[in-house]
Amino acid sequence: MTECISSMTNKLIKETTSLKQRKYREKLELFLAEGVRLVEECVHADWPVATCIYTEEIAERERAKNIIDRLAVTNCRMVKVPAEIYKKISDTEQPQGIMAILKKRQFSVKQMLAGKDKLPLLVILDGIQDPGNVGTIIRTADAAGCSGVITLKGSADIYAGKTVRATMGSLFHLPVAEGMIYSDLITNLKQAGVSLLATCLQHSAVYYQADFKRPVALILGNEGQGISPELLSAADSRINIPLIGHAESLNVAVAAGVVLYEAIRQRATL
Amino acid sequence: MTECISSMTNKLIKETTSLKQRKYREKLELFLAEGVRLVEECVHADWPVATCIYTEEIAERERAKNIIDRLAVTNCRMVKVPAEIYKKISDTEQPQGIMAILKKRQFSVKQMLAGKDKLPLLVILDGIQDPGNVGTIIRTADAAGCSGVITLKGSADIYAGKTVRATMGSLFHLPVAEGMIYSDLITNLKQAGVSLLATCLQHSAVYYQADFKRPVALILGNEGQGISPELLSAADSRINIPLIGHAESLNVAVAAGVVLYEAIRQRATL
Repeated sequence: MTECISSMTNKLIKETTSLKQRKYREKLELFLAEGVRLVEECVHADWPVATCIYTEEIAERERAKNIIDRLAVTNCRMVKVPAEIYKKISDTEQPQGIMAILKKRQFSVKQMLAGKDKLPLLVILDGIQDPGNVGTIIRTADAAGCSGVITLKGSADIYAGKTVRATMGSLFHLPVAEGMIYSDLITNLKQAGVSLLATCLQHSAVYYQADFKRPVALILGNEGQGISPELLSAADSRINIPLIGHAESLNVAVAAGVVLYEAIRQRATL
Repeated sequence: MTECISSMTNKLIKETTSLKQRKYREKLELFLAEGVRLVEECVHADWPVATCIYTEEIAERERAKNIIDRLAVTNCRMVKVPAEIYKKISDTEQPQGIMAILKKRQFSVKQMLAGKDKLPLLVILDGIQDPGNVGTIIRTADAAGCSGVITLKGSADIYAGKTVRATMGSLFHLPVAEGMIYSDLITNLKQAGVSLLATCLQHSAVYYQADFKRPVALILGNEGQGISPELLSAADSRINIPLIGHAESLNVAVAAGVVLYEAIRQRATL
């Protein structure tokens, strides 16, 4: 059954609007995926959709209609709103007219490492600030077939609208964990025999000289400050990507791609 | 001598404001670099600064003052404006209060390939739409020590504010050429013995199987459509970056990083 809501003071509308803010995403353990492509991706990935909010206009288009029809036969709450209401609750500049409210998922390191017949390859984000970078790293990690992405306290929110969009749907395919405590993470990984590789410019080896033919977790640090001292001292080895021209650094998502694909290259001969 | 301008109808102020639009950047062959760090980068790179516009507030800060003092003894026109005028001419959301008006530079393929005691490594952008991607690719190409970046018609403007910022100053260090014609470019590169490597998913080899120990131009295509058929058929070989997870593609700047650093890795043993 589809509800029609046309009041901004409606409880669902107010709650949805609040999900633009991290504190409410954390409190309610919910987040938004907006746009035809993203909603399609989470449906295809069988990520349970709590609520789907859409406009009459988008429901007339075939691609959106297919998703709406598919969700309507699940437990998903279906809500039609006027375009002007949609525009107000949307977190995008050019609202398409369809969004899904999704429940967050939190994977454990154990889950990320379990049940895979492949060598673990994890990515740890230590204070990455830009949501676009976090999203692009999740997309890249998915492309590289990683076991999961873990963010530590101080990183941008995995579930921010901009992050979710930048993942291009990879968020729904890759195990992620957010806000983990340093010490717990390090203990877990060391117990599982995973080598911690920290990217940093000082006292480090060129990345392609590192051995990726073993379980590895790649640590990427804050855009300006790099990796925090605690994590750096816990790392098993330090690697750098050589800077041959004048650039002082690489974009952190580009750096992630360069190192993860070196792992793929090395492992291809296994 | 420093001029003080406090009218929005002043010719310089109007011209500067117009530079937010591509058509005026093309007509006047000028562009803007905003913010302390970027202006500093272009001064350090000896890129001639035509005009420097700044506010009284920023001139009191040491780092900005150093740049202003350095520019004041050159041919640069120095213009102080009130903060409210600066805010209006600025192309950034949080204006810092200092910008440089710079003359565009256009390098030829010949210049990019000449006078280097290293193997040429070029990047060709065929219709990349997002200015942030174009900027990040220029930054990555600089980091990887490339010979230059060439954009073909239909690509985002190298000199757009967002592109310039995303290059993080690499624009001032790396030879670039914009809006080149396909056929001229291909003729020039083939004559110079440069192999054209096109990134595309179909009928292509894994990128690390390609030989980068020779003069190479890497072609990257539009985010959605890929490389245009003309350029694809002119390519000497086609390469792909394997997608192991569910992601349908990589961000194009990440893809650039992965392939360019494979070239670096292969060439390190030369």
